[in-house]
Amino acid sequence: MNFGIIKRTVGWILLFEAAFFLVPLIAAAIYWEAEFFAFLICMGICAALGGLCLIGKPKSDKIYAKEGFVITALCWIVLSAFGALPFVLAGTIPNYIDALFETVSGFTTTGATVIDPEVGVESLPKCILMWRSFTHWVGGMGVLVFIMAFLPLSGARNMHIMKAESPGPTVGKLVPRVRKTAAILYGIYGVLTLVQIIMLLCGGMSLFDAINTAFATAGTGGFSVKNDGLIGYNSYIQIVVTVFMLIFSINFNSYYLLIRRKWKEVLTEEVKWFLIIVASAILAVTLNVFFTETVNAVGDKMSFGEALKHAAFSVASVVSTTGFATEDFNTWPVFSHIILVGMMFIGACAGSTGGGIKVSRLLLLGKSTSNEIGKMLHPKRVKRITMDGRAVDDEVVRSVYGYMIAYVIIFVASLAIISLDLGNLTHGDSGAFATGFTAVAATFNNIGPGFGAVGPTGSFTDFSWWSKLVFIFDMLAGRLEIFPMLILFAPMTWKKCA
Amino acid sequence: MNFGIIKRTVGWILLFEAAFFLVPLIAAAIYWEAEFFAFLICMGICAALGGLCLIGKPKSDKIYAKEGFVITALCWIVLSAFGALPFVLAGTIPNYIDALFETVSGFTTTGATVIDPEVGVESLPKCILMWRSFTHWVGGMGVLVFIMAFLPLSGARNMHIMKAESPGPTVGKLVPRVRKTAAILYGIYGVLTLVQIIMLLCGGMSLFDAINTAFATAGTGGFSVKNDGLIGYNSYIQIVVTVFMLIFSINFNSYYLLIRRKWKEVLTEEVKWFLIIVASAILAVTLNVFFTETVNAVGDKMSFGEALKHAAFSVASVVSTTGFATEDFNTWPVFSHIILVGMMFIGACAGSTGGGIKVSRLLLLGKSTSNEIGKMLHPKRVKRITMDGRAVDDEVVRSVYGYMIAYVIIFVASLAIISLDLGNLTHGDSGAFATGFTAVAATFNNIGPGFGAVGPTGSFTDFSWWSKLVFIFDMLAGRLEIFPMLILFAPMTWKKCA
Repeated sequence: MNFGIIKRTVGWILLFEAAFFLVPLIAAAIYWEAEFFAFLICMGICAALGGLCLIGKPKSDKIYAKEGFVITALCWIVLSAFGALPFVLAGTIPNYIDALFETVSGFTTTGATVIDPEVGVESLPKCILMWRSFTHWVGGMGVLVFIMAFLPLSGARNMHIMKAESPGPTVGKLVPRVRKTAAILYGIYGVLTLVQIIMLLCGGMSLFDAINTAFATAGTGGFSVKNDGLIGYNSYIQIVVTVFMLIFSINFNSYYLLIRRKWKEVLTEEVKWFLIIVASAILAVTLNVFFTETVNAVGDKMSFGEALKHAAFSVASVVSTTGFATEDFNTWPVFSHIILVGMMFIGACAGSTGGGIKVSRLLLLGKSTSNEIGKMLHPKRVKRITMDGRAVDDEVVRSVYGYMIAYVIIFVASLAIISLDLGNLTHGDSGAFATGFTAVAATFNNIGPGFGAVGPTGSFTDFSWWSKLVFIFDMLAGRLEIFPMLILFAPMTWKKCA
Repeated sequence: MNFGIIKRTVGWILLFEAAFFLVPLIAAAIYWEAEFFAFLICMGICAALGGLCLIGKPKSDKIYAKEGFVITALCWIVLSAFGALPFVLAGTIPNYIDALFETVSGFTTTGATVIDPEVGVESLPKCILMWRSFTHWVGGMGVLVFIMAFLPLSGARNMHIMKAESPGPTVGKLVPRVRKTAAILYGIYGVLTLVQIIMLLCGGMSLFDAINTAFATAGTGGFSVKNDGLIGYNSYIQIVVTVFMLIFSINFNSYYLLIRRKWKEVLTEEVKWFLIIVASAILAVTLNVFFTETVNAVGDKMSFGEALKHAAFSVASVVSTTGFATEDFNTWPVFSHIILVGMMFIGACAGSTGGGIKVSRLLLLGKSTSNEIGKMLHPKRVKRITMDGRAVDDEVVRSVYGYMIAYVIIFVASLAIISLDLGNLTHGDSGAFATGFTAVAATFNNIGPGFGAVGPTGSFTDFSWWSKLVFIFDMLAGRLEIFPMLILFAPMTWKKCA
């Protein structure tokens, strides 16, 4: 294990975090808020510690796959651990574990909150809200990818880090150089965010709300600056957010190909299937909500248009793993619940800012299963799995399988641990199972709200500290796609000469 | 596709079913019940149709893997379709789909019932009860395996059928000849059933109850002859049933090795892990139930011994996929629910009469995942997956993965379809999710009761006819481990020259 390079990367992460604090500092200065000093102190701490870590040059700048995973997991933990300090120092979230939950939820673009719904986010200082939203934006495309766009982290071996941090079973380099790829991705990301801010402003949103909402949409996070999320805004704004949630769920490579005018390659199999899944889900939920005569927040029966709008918003919100709400879907019929829970697991495309299992993984699994059945019928026939016309490496398929099994194991273990908590939390009512199941699903898939007590109008605040630690692990494991977190904590990683 | 041999096997199945009807016929004769004639008519129909199918000799007796799957799926469907007739003719379950549900539930050893709990099973004729229990016994070890023990079905190629019908990722032939293997398996099965009947009689159970309970335990089915299941019996009987549920969940090969005195080979990795899982689950549920001061059926706080007894019974009941109840575990704390639901999915050992995913499959998946992680750390190291010291074929691992993916797809699709029904059924209360989720889990894993409205004191009677058809498919797919049912309905199976 190359400890020198690990120390160095952690140092850079802390320096960058110090720079990130500039964003809430500016907000605090504009709104003349006393929390300015909390951010200033944290900035100082990060800068000092970061500087210390950068003293001395590592003996070697070589990193292998192992180092790539460890660096990625460690950097995300360090980033969150220090990012939680302002919440504690400012007194907004005095308990450190709660503050860590909120920060991890931010960076992993989960959007689950421990802010008590009875207190509400509107009472929080603007600079704190800005920091919450900004963590979404940074976490969305990946903080290490961000740093790579500026710095030659470890020579030519950056690919191992990019692989570990980017969502999806494989990473496509857009251009031969990793650094330039990172810069292109962040360029597209920045421009799309800007476009959304402008479109939200056109809808009459205030600049502060527009920036925060765009940050939360771009990272597919879901933290909101209003107590009732996006319910209070007009239909135009809700539709803009719906569209942008879906835009940020699509593989960014497609946007690059769009810019390069490679029209034929834009619509990959994954994107095509993603659009089919989203369209079918919206249709199913719309019809279900409309024909069961579900009532809206005001208590009136929804019109078809209204049902379509809310269905599209909710499907886009869960499939992109953003987790915004326009309606409390707790009150919708069970069939719609199942569809929405299904979307939670499917998630976005690989190479997007969204979470979940990812469409390309499910596609590979589907193809491999139909291949297996074919082999049972015709044992002698050899057929390779292809994606977009190219044969898929057996290794990729096997690692997707490994991912799925690890996914299920972590899911079930988390559910078992937090269920010890659930009896007290829901006072043993029959909705406990739905609350527990969707609480794990919503954190592990980086969505935010689930159903029941953790629904769009609820919060994670009532869970015990150890349940929150489980959720923190799940959110990080979900964002980094399991392996970096497993490898960081696996004893065999740290064995000598292994 | 060799249609001749398929027709012939279906013919034999019908003739054997006619013979199976002898069991309820004897019961009807003893108890002087009018339903005697219903069984007699059905016997005549099966014998006549079976005889017709056997006219003419098939051109070839060769069968391949494809025919093995199709024959197995088709035979189980035919067996259930005709086995349902007595319920309709006798007027016990007038609706044919309900009767089919009950029969499929019997043969697949699920034990889910459509008998209205307000009517109760005690009001049913004895011969009908006997038929229900006997379907469990026949289905447990497999009807085709049963026939193979007597008849040379298709020469040397019987292995394809045995593979398709026997539970687990691989089938171990005990002796070189398939026919003798089948006879040995049924011999062990019969002796164990007989021992249980005698032990139940020693506990003061009536002969009728003892035979029925033993049939339902041996097949890990779960149909009961009492309205309150086994709650009314004494502790001795409950403990005997607990032990036998576990005995029938262990790979029968281990019993053969025990008889052959190959002591060292008896405790395979799978059996070892099964015992570890069961012991841990019993301990966890006992402690949880005891320390949360859960009350028993009478309303008193359970003593530690009582908690242990009920925990052991419930864990054995779900892990063996039998589904008997001694206590309504709906009232237990959430943590225990999660453990029990987990056991529902894990299921029994391969080569037993139990259902679920099977311990050996999960073992293979776990080993393969840890292998994948090892490969990420050390890309150049090659390590094979072994089981009991022997290397496992890549093909077996891949087919287990294929099974798991197909499992999840069928599970989610079933849940989505029946959830359309769930809104009406549970009147939109917050327990609808738990009811739907465990209803699918309980039928697909061949357990019987779930939680909520389909709990130990509930029934499947209120579901709509199309939900029942989904459950029927799930029960058959669960018992035959998915592939035979998928292959029977896959268009590519029936393509010419494919």
